[in-house]
Amino acid sequence: MAGSTFGKAFSITTWGESHGAGVGVVVDGCPAGLEINAEEIQSELNRRKTGQSQMTTPRQEKDLIQIMSGVFEGKTTGTPISMLVYNEDADSSKYDEIKDKFRPGHADFSYLAKYGVRDHRGGGRSSARETVGRVAAGAIARKLLAHYGVKVVAYTKELGGIVAQKIDFDEIERNLVRCPDPDVAPQMVEIVLQAKKELDSLGGVAEVVAIGVPPGLGEPVFDKLDAEIAKAMLSIPAIKGIEFGAGFALARMHGSQSNDPFINVGGKIGTIENKAGGILGGISTGEDILVRLAVKPTSSIARQQNTVNTEGEATTIEVRGRHDPTIIVRAIPVIEAMLCLTLADHLMRQRLARLEFN
Amino acid sequence: MAGSTFGKAFSITTWGESHGAGVGVVVDGCPAGLEINAEEIQSELNRRKTGQSQMTTPRQEKDLIQIMSGVFEGKTTGTPISMLVYNEDADSSKYDEIKDKFRPGHADFSYLAKYGVRDHRGGGRSSARETVGRVAAGAIARKLLAHYGVKVVAYTKELGGIVAQKIDFDEIERNLVRCPDPDVAPQMVEIVLQAKKELDSLGGVAEVVAIGVPPGLGEPVFDKLDAEIAKAMLSIPAIKGIEFGAGFALARMHGSQSNDPFINVGGKIGTIENKAGGILGGISTGEDILVRLAVKPTSSIARQQNTVNTEGEATTIEVRGRHDPTIIVRAIPVIEAMLCLTLADHLMRQRLARLEFN
Amino acid sequence: MAGSTFGKAFSITTWGESHGAGVGVVVDGCPAGLEINAEEIQSELNRRKTGQSQMTTPRQEKDLIQIMSGVFEGKTTGTPISMLVYNEDADSSKYDEIKDKFRPGHADFSYLAKYGVRDHRGGGRSSARETVGRVAAGAIARKLLAHYGVKVVAYTKELGGIVAQKIDFDEIERNLVRCPDPDVAPQMVEIVLQAKKELDSLGGVAEVVAIGVPPGLGEPVFDKLDAEIAKAMLSIPAIKGIEFGAGFALARMHGSQSNDPFINVGGKIGTIENKAGGILGGISTGEDILVRLAVKPTSSIARQQNTVNTEGEATTIEVRGRHDPTIIVRAIPVIEAMLCLTLADHLMRQRLARLEFN
Amino acid sequence: MAGSTFGKAFSITTWGESHGAGVGVVVDGCPAGLEINAEEIQSELNRRKTGQSQMTTPRQEKDLIQIMSGVFEGKTTGTPISMLVYNEDADSSKYDEIKDKFRPGHADFSYLAKYGVRDHRGGGRSSARETVGRVAAGAIARKLLAHYGVKVVAYTKELGGIVAQKIDFDEIERNLVRCPDPDVAPQMVEIVLQAKKELDSLGGVAEVVAIGVPPGLGEPVFDKLDAEIAKAMLSIPAIKGIEFGAGFALARMHGSQSNDPFINVGGKIGTIENKAGGILGGISTGEDILVRLAVKPTSSIARQQNTVNTEGEATTIEVRGRHDPTIIVRAIPVIEAMLCLTLADHLMRQRLARLEFN
Repeated sequence: MAGSTFGKAFSITTWGESHGAGVGVVVDGCPAGLEINAEEIQSELNRRKTGQSQMTTPRQEKDLIQIMSGVFEGKTTGTPISMLVYNEDADSSKYDEIKDKFRPGHADFSYLAKYGVRDHRGGGRSSARETVGRVAAGAIARKLLAHYGVKVVAYTKELGGIVAQKIDFDEIERNLVRCPDPDVAPQMVEIVLQAKKELDSLGGVAEVVAIGVPPGLGEPVFDKLDAEIAKAMLSIPAIKGIEFGAGFALARMHGSQSNDPFINVGGKIGTIENKAGGILGGISTGEDILVRLAVKPTSSIARQQNTVNTEGEATTIEVRGRHDPTIIVRAIPVIEAMLCLTLADHLMRQRLARLEFN
Repeated sequence: MAGSTFGKAFSITTWGESHGAGVGVVVDGCPAGLEINAEEIQSELNRRKTGQSQMTTPRQEKDLIQIMSGVFEGKTTGTPISMLVYNEDADSSKYDEIKDKFRPGHADFSYLAKYGVRDHRGGGRSSARETVGRVAAGAIARKLLAHYGVKVVAYTKELGGIVAQKIDFDEIERNLVRCPDPDVAPQMVEIVLQAKKELDSLGGVAEVVAIGVPPGLGEPVFDKLDAEIAKAMLSIPAIKGIEFGAGFALARMHGSQSNDPFINVGGKIGTIENKAGGILGGISTGEDILVRLAVKPTSSIARQQNTVNTEGEATTIEVRGRHDPTIIVRAIPVIEAMLCLTLADHLMRQRLARLEFN
Repeated sequence: MAGSTFGKAFSITTWGESHGAGVGVVVDGCPAGLEINAEEIQSELNRRKTGQSQMTTPRQEKDLIQIMSGVFEGKTTGTPISMLVYNEDADSSKYDEIKDKFRPGHADFSYLAKYGVRDHRGGGRSSARETVGRVAAGAIARKLLAHYGVKVVAYTKELGGIVAQKIDFDEIERNLVRCPDPDVAPQMVEIVLQAKKELDSLGGVAEVVAIGVPPGLGEPVFDKLDAEIAKAMLSIPAIKGIEFGAGFALARMHGSQSNDPFINVGGKIGTIENKAGGILGGISTGEDILVRLAVKPTSSIARQQNTVNTEGEATTIEVRGRHDPTIIVRAIPVIEAMLCLTLADHLMRQRLARLEFN
Repeated sequence: MAGSTFGKAFSITTWGESHGAGVGVVVDGCPAGLEINAEEIQSELNRRKTGQSQMTTPRQEKDLIQIMSGVFEGKTTGTPISMLVYNEDADSSKYDEIKDKFRPGHADFSYLAKYGVRDHRGGGRSSARETVGRVAAGAIARKLLAHYGVKVVAYTKELGGIVAQKIDFDEIERNLVRCPDPDVAPQMVEIVLQAKKELDSLGGVAEVVAIGVPPGLGEPVFDKLDAEIAKAMLSIPAIKGIEFGAGFALARMHGSQSNDPFINVGGKIGTIENKAGGILGGISTGEDILVRLAVKPTSSIARQQNTVNTEGEATTIEVRGRHDPTIIVRAIPVIEAMLCLTLADHLMRQRLARLEFN
């Protein structure tokens, strides 16, 4: 009932908050026999961590992963995999001044409304620090996907109004903004630095693709693959919208345009285009899963903003500290992790669909 | 694990397919003591049913609801509420010609890929007929919301490229397209009739609003309110995208624009604007929940389309029968139902958040 | 969260109460491709129904099953299977006199304490009539088990102090008390008739066996096979205790006696005895699952009993009407159904345990 | 789906195995505002730990608890509470000789059958070491129960055939066998020492009582309070049977004996006796919850036993190392923990039963 668990067959439970002792995750339902490599998990965490570049907060967190259980002689045993990262000695005192104020765009007010208390230090549980556990678990899900021949890639499609025109996966990790188009990446970097200078932040559009997904994944009528991906993505901080395939553009088409005709290409049934984003009736078709996400600008900005305090009195706030001038860069590995987790769950669940499993 | 259940505290399980004996729903977790009125449920079903107008398929289905359990002397008893509608004598023979062909835009191919069998008659379980159960259950959720002072309204925001400029709730049921703007509604009607004449169909954008939602609803970090609403909406046939508040427009803003400053209006803390759509950190803020949805054009069109058959051979198909020229009109009550169900579930779950309940 | 659903992979949701419109069940997660036969389901219901013999209440309920969904051309489609039985015109008026009294041994008081209202007619939801849905779903689970070579049999091991000495499965349905020992069955019948004459009722001990269960079923550490079976059985009305294998007798043994040595019989690893009841560490071993159950006497007796009314005033009650002089006979098919359902769920879940499924 | 989570509203997920890096638990759904005290949790763990006395294994494990999240300024925040204990430098080498043999009474064979691999060191996940997480979480559940005025106590009712005649709660922690009867406790100690000397082990019967449980807890028809308690208890290693109230003795009674008449004592409705064990129709009545459990003898015994190896060849085994001569003593705090967790879950769930919460 409480909301810290995601997935039914391959499920994860994350725990931890910004300034507690640590953050972590328990993966339950990973099948026995999967090779697990701590370096691969660490490598994903490194893509997410702070202090990577000028595009991210200069805070330095090592985020060293500890695998506590569920792996024996390099392979999963079918029992829960617990992983954790200790928080480093964080200075909570700098949050004292915002202790009694509600930061605009943040969850300070809504958490207090919900729980009657709030851990104001760094946003507590609402901090994006919680996503460490998702990325660690996502690295395991990614291994499971690889076993099935599935690959997941996310990137910055648009940033501060600048749009990638080319999609070259090899370029993504070569620039500071994880943009697949090397021609516009420098402009994106520039516009972020400008926003930073102005004590402001920027939003963007991320795109995530899954290649090699077998047809048949998704559990109608409520756990449809697109419904589950939507939930996964909207659970990531800062995501405010999602569309599949042609998405909102479909709303302006005629049926004769939006329908993708089926074709047979070398014995494999597919569609000519992919306006449906690889999902029909909530079930994967075998085409690429294609998802686009609206990422809002980082809520923490150093500019002065109007707000109220916990007494309801008008006041102003400057959210000091070291923040990401855009969150999209560090969101990319989280987005990939959540898609990996969703697909891993549904790859497992598909094992239950038929009497004869194959 | 199977996907026919939605909600954890206030949960529903739907069953039934287009040409089976009937369709229905079991509501489990509705608290005891809620007044239930069969007429109110029927009234919601009537808004969803076929044959309402030229905007919908001329098929005539009465959809008379039977309440089978869980209600005693006009009130819920806390036990499961089972409701069903018998399918009327449907002629399945007209589906014979599409038995071995995959209709473009439909789930024929993906269902077969998943289950190894498919009930081809009218789309089987993938038929929007399944949503009868959702609407019936949604009517009960709506009663629960009313008890808490929450109201849910959906409408056609855009249809065939024509956009509503005014939002007058009173107008919605006064025109055939459920548009809140009486000035553009006739144009919308016109463009639908034109598409129908051309054996084609149209998509649109729906908007749904929840008013009076108390702050505090939503269960971080995975069952955030927006994540759950996204899942609910994407589980509805034909929905291909969702955005909250300013949505994708946020991706093009600076943080200084996207952040909604908090204010105190007469003792109630809120925000000046509502770019966040009433949700921060996955928890309701007390502002209106505001959601926008991409609705694709009806996939069933009478025009000839290219496709393949179950043998993988190229062929053509004309989806005959009586279909909705746009699905958005009948989707509106389903969208409302799903938002009601999501909010009802989270109103109940919020009872668990604190030691002292109030 | 609400409690009307059992099972995670192969799951059922029952609904309905004694004097509502009907009772039924939705099975979600039954794999596609299983042959379903309405006669087989009806046949199980007939074993459970009233009016079978002098051992059961003389009420006559036909309990004709309707399959509403999920089956197409004689096979499951992987979508929810909804089944229902209409309640026949029941005379609720005879319950008027107990409307304001709490029947000893019944759930009248506890339901009212829980929900604040109660449907007093025939016990409402607490009536054993609810088990109709379990038996119908159990018949489908039994089909799935048969596909895996698993067979489930229950019987009356002890009744009114008389204990079966022989276990001959073929005898079970040949006598009125479902006793596998033809020598003691007549005595059991006699003692029941005696209790009936005295306006009293009797309890007994039921035993249920599952043969052919593959090793490996059960999901540690909480969904262990014995834990899940215990839950399933204790959810049946009138069951007050359960033991596995040698059960409580193990508490009086030394480890050198209670441990079952492993042996290899023709290439199959097993144990010489089966004091563990076929389960070690919560996982099936391949030996027979062996379970014993305490069944309390029917709570409804026509004798005068002391009680209080809803005002808390002392009063007396005679539970008139036509009741089962012992409930164990009609409980047998329910016990079998619940074991079938538990095993079906775990047969499916075992598909998720390893990377390479086989 | 995987089985490491227990509870729906107040839920726990345990992780860890005997010789992994550590063991722990994540509690999700504990309401905000509950006072948490690390000492109280440690104190419960100390009751469970090894090396307490001659009645337990002489192994010395400190089991120092770390609270990693979910508690701020001494109170719960409503977010997940993660707790862990590092395993101390365990010598796995002594398990090398049993690496390829199946220990009788243990889960070695069934785990291998399930997962295809097994962590043979100390039983891996099937080790009772996993219960550390249960006891830590149980200490938090106990705090929640105390807030509602509920108290849980377990004790050794019978050990090696010797039965406690008196129940004096104050005596339980005063003797080495957690027996509430000071007169028979020394005999119990003696018989355990005798078994130990003979390289053997003993079983017993535990009893657990919950006092002050409000009427109304339990969620029919599957999550009945007794069904859930049965699951909780059978999920504890070594438990092989359970009975409620008069339990199996009810099977030998007439209804006129087994029915507990209701009475009004000072305005509180209750029953004269408590043969139902405080539960009717799966819902608490307000009487004491009374449960009896069969605890099998410790499976690890140093005597030579017959078994087979992983190749299926006959062999013998002596389970060396330091084992508990009876497991019941250390099982007592685990039994209490599981009852606390079950009741905490149902206290929370009861908040959902009625429209008007009170």
